Amino acid sequence: MAPEPVYLDNNATTRCDPAVVEAMLPYFSEQFGNASSMHAFGAEVGGALARARKQLQALLGAEFDHEIVYTSGGTEADNMAILSALETQGERNEIVTSAVEHPAVLSLVAHLEKTGRAKVHIIGVDAKGRLDIEAYRKALGPKTAIVSIMWANNETGTIFPVEQLAQLAHQAGALFHTDAVQAVGKIPINMAESEIDMLSLSGHKLHGPKGIGALYARKGTRLRPLIRGGHQERGRRAGTENAPAIIGLGKAAELALEHMNDEQTRVAGLRDRLEKGLLQRIGNSFVTGDTENRLPNTANVAFEYIEGEAILLFMNREGIAASSGSACTSGSLEPSHVLRAMNVPYTAAHGAIRFSFSRENDETDVDRVLEAMPQIIDRLREMSPFWRERDKADAGFNPTYA
Amino acid sequence: MAPEPVYLDNNATTRCDPAVVEAMLPYFSEQFGNASSMHAFGAEVGGALARARKQLQALLGAEFDHEIVYTSGGTEADNMAILSALETQGERNEIVTSAVEHPAVLSLVAHLEKTGRAKVHIIGVDAKGRLDIEAYRKALGPKTAIVSIMWANNETGTIFPVEQLAQLAHQAGALFHTDAVQAVGKIPINMAESEIDMLSLSGHKLHGPKGIGALYARKGTRLRPLIRGGHQERGRRAGTENAPAIIGLGKAAELALEHMNDEQTRVAGLRDRLEKGLLQRIGNSFVTGDTENRLPNTANVAFEYIEGEAILLFMNREGIAASSGSACTSGSLEPSHVLRAMNVPYTAAHGAIRFSFSRENDETDVDRVLEAMPQIIDRLREMSPFWRERDKADAGFNPTYA
Ligand SMILES: Cc1ncc(COP(=O)(O)O)c(C=O)c1O
Ligand SMILES: Cc1ncc(COP(=O)(O)O)c(C=O)c1O
Repeated sequence: MAPEPVYLDNNATTRCDPAVVEAMLPYFSEQFGNASSMHAFGAEVGGALARARKQLQALLGAEFDHEIVYTSGGTEADNMAILSALETQGERNEIVTSAVEHPAVLSLVAHLEKTGRAKVHIIGVDAKGRLDIEAYRKALGPKTAIVSIMWANNETGTIFPVEQLAQLAHQAGALFHTDAVQAVGKIPINMAESEIDMLSLSGHKLHGPKGIGALYARKGTRLRPLIRGGHQERGRRAGTENAPAIIGLGKAAELALEHMNDEQTRVAGLRDRLEKGLLQRIGNSFVTGDTENRLPNTANVAFEYIEGEAILLFMNREGIAASSGSACTSGSLEPSHVLRAMNVPYTAAHGAIRFSFSRENDETDVDRVLEAMPQIIDRLREMSPFWRERDKADAGFNPTYA
Repeated sequence: MAPEPVYLDNNATTRCDPAVVEAMLPYFSEQFGNASSMHAFGAEVGGALARARKQLQALLGAEFDHEIVYTSGGTEADNMAILSALETQGERNEIVTSAVEHPAVLSLVAHLEKTGRAKVHIIGVDAKGRLDIEAYRKALGPKTAIVSIMWANNETGTIFPVEQLAQLAHQAGALFHTDAVQAVGKIPINMAESEIDMLSLSGHKLHGPKGIGALYARKGTRLRPLIRGGHQERGRRAGTENAPAIIGLGKAAELALEHMNDEQTRVAGLRDRLEKGLLQRIGNSFVTGDTENRLPNTANVAFEYIEGEAILLFMNREGIAASSGSACTSGSLEPSHVLRAMNVPYTAAHGAIRFSFSRENDETDVDRVLEAMPQIIDRLREMSPFWRERDKADAGFNPTYA
């Protein structure tokens, strides 16, 4: 019998918690009415939606529950925050962001730049993935409409100093938005005591359902709808409320709060043990990212002179799921834009594997990976011309990678 | 024991079919992987998504399955179609639409007009809700970027001659979009033999899940994303695929095709019997909309000299769910924009009730409504000053309604 598979790709997506599914179920075929209708089929929906909003509010430590605007996911929330700011910030038409953002931010701002709707400043990072604060300060100015800088990076787990960045943005009169899709549910968040104006999150990254996310917008922040129509979400986001998903996200938020301690300690412990074990057992490997400021669940380990996609394939045969680069860019053979921005040597960036844990992982999972990986890496290196000729490889592995 | 409730509000939202929920369930907590990942947790997802796309393609009679772009619902699809056309149609910056569209179209185009991004022509309807074709012809011209005219009206069920309208739009070089949120699943649709360029639909209107919809865009139609980020949906709509909902919508589409005949005959029969029965039993009442070109499931009956909200309240006590105006505008006491556009006399528009059936209704439901309504209307009329003084009321009932 094949052993239980090991899932270490929680930054791509998480398993919807069975308790979340259970919370959603009555709202598909029983309490299915439109929340705004006045009859029995939706009678309980309104109350359940109000409770769900409170649950998410609690996870965010937000002062008001109406600071939450539900969206279809993290991408929509990111797009909405940035486009809204360009409309509400008058003459200001510049955007400051980082080189390691998710495509939900980077491909939008590239489009805005290309179509002349904004001037974009992209701030670089150092070899550990830390933001270049000096360049950031310099990019801010009287034309800055909005800063959009992620709370935590999806590939390396590196955490940016968002409070400090928000203060600096405010000093320049700019709005501060953070893509917290990877942070929410993994590290404590307290918006009531924050300077951040807007924050994006996504349900399926915290054991909630797919197709639901939210934009937190601090009370008083002017917001322009991205999607117009009915009066849902106080006129800020139109479309029939996705009641089951909103209720599921509420439950997921409640569970995330309950497990926050576990995430900080036990999950981080699993991650650390895996990392240490891998580096001990496998030469020519190292951890990427800022190990001092990192999500508790993420390890990004670069195995030199081999291809990440090949590693994943071999891991898959052993029933272990992880990812190389971000799921969005997998399929292409270029190293991810995040590792490129960090100037990770190309001979290593190609072989970077992201192991991302969740509360559902345990010691056995770590043991399984530690057992499997040395052989996998060995075998692939045996087959790799770059490993055999690694002195030459260091000089020029992939011409498309400049 | 209270009798089973009767649900006749299917144009607001439908019950998610239990078979749809069953089809979705494995994709929450078992096959939960990212469809684009290469490991076992998402292994079946890709295949299931491909099947679901084929199922929706079949319902639409579309030539290619990649003509479907999944969205978060009907509202997003409507917004995307119109905004995309403004970007791709070069110098053309005019929009032609009707006075009876859903807010998903009307409030977007109002915003575009207000912000100077488009000139909008709003075509009126006659007393039966039929489009003013002459005015439509005149509004089309060399500046028309897009026409957005609904296939069927959500309040009255009136069907517009969309093929003819599409031909006329094309003669003017404009794109033709139709909001078919109320048509898909209720009447046969064959996009392969149609002139329509773009079509919006929404899952929860056809016994599918909430939070999912689609924009059909004929092959060759240039499309600009509304939401930018990852490469999902061939780069046309970013964000992690909502796999359970897409799979649920596929199942809903399959079921809708299977029941299409039932909808055309049995459901239409129930509706007709209800309508006839109501008019026979209750004086000063009439049907609004174009009874010759109507969805099979919709009856909009105006009961003169009383308030729709009061009628709904009394119906609710009898366990009968319907709606007055559209769910989006309920809450306000003004008659809906649809009935106003039709010039339904205000003494009647206020008392208009929409009964909307689905395949889940049966004869018993009709009997229950026919039994309950005469007493409800009588009692409300007894209490109504407008009924007692109906000669005067005809002269001026509601000063805010002009
Ligand atoms: C940092 C970050 N931002 C945004 C997103 C987009 O979220 P979604 O796919 O739910 O739209 C993701 C995940 O894909 C992410 O990791
Ligand atoms: C005709 C019409 N268009 C658009 C919509 C919007 O669909 P959704 O609420 O799923 O976004 C609706 C329903 O609310 C509708 O009836």
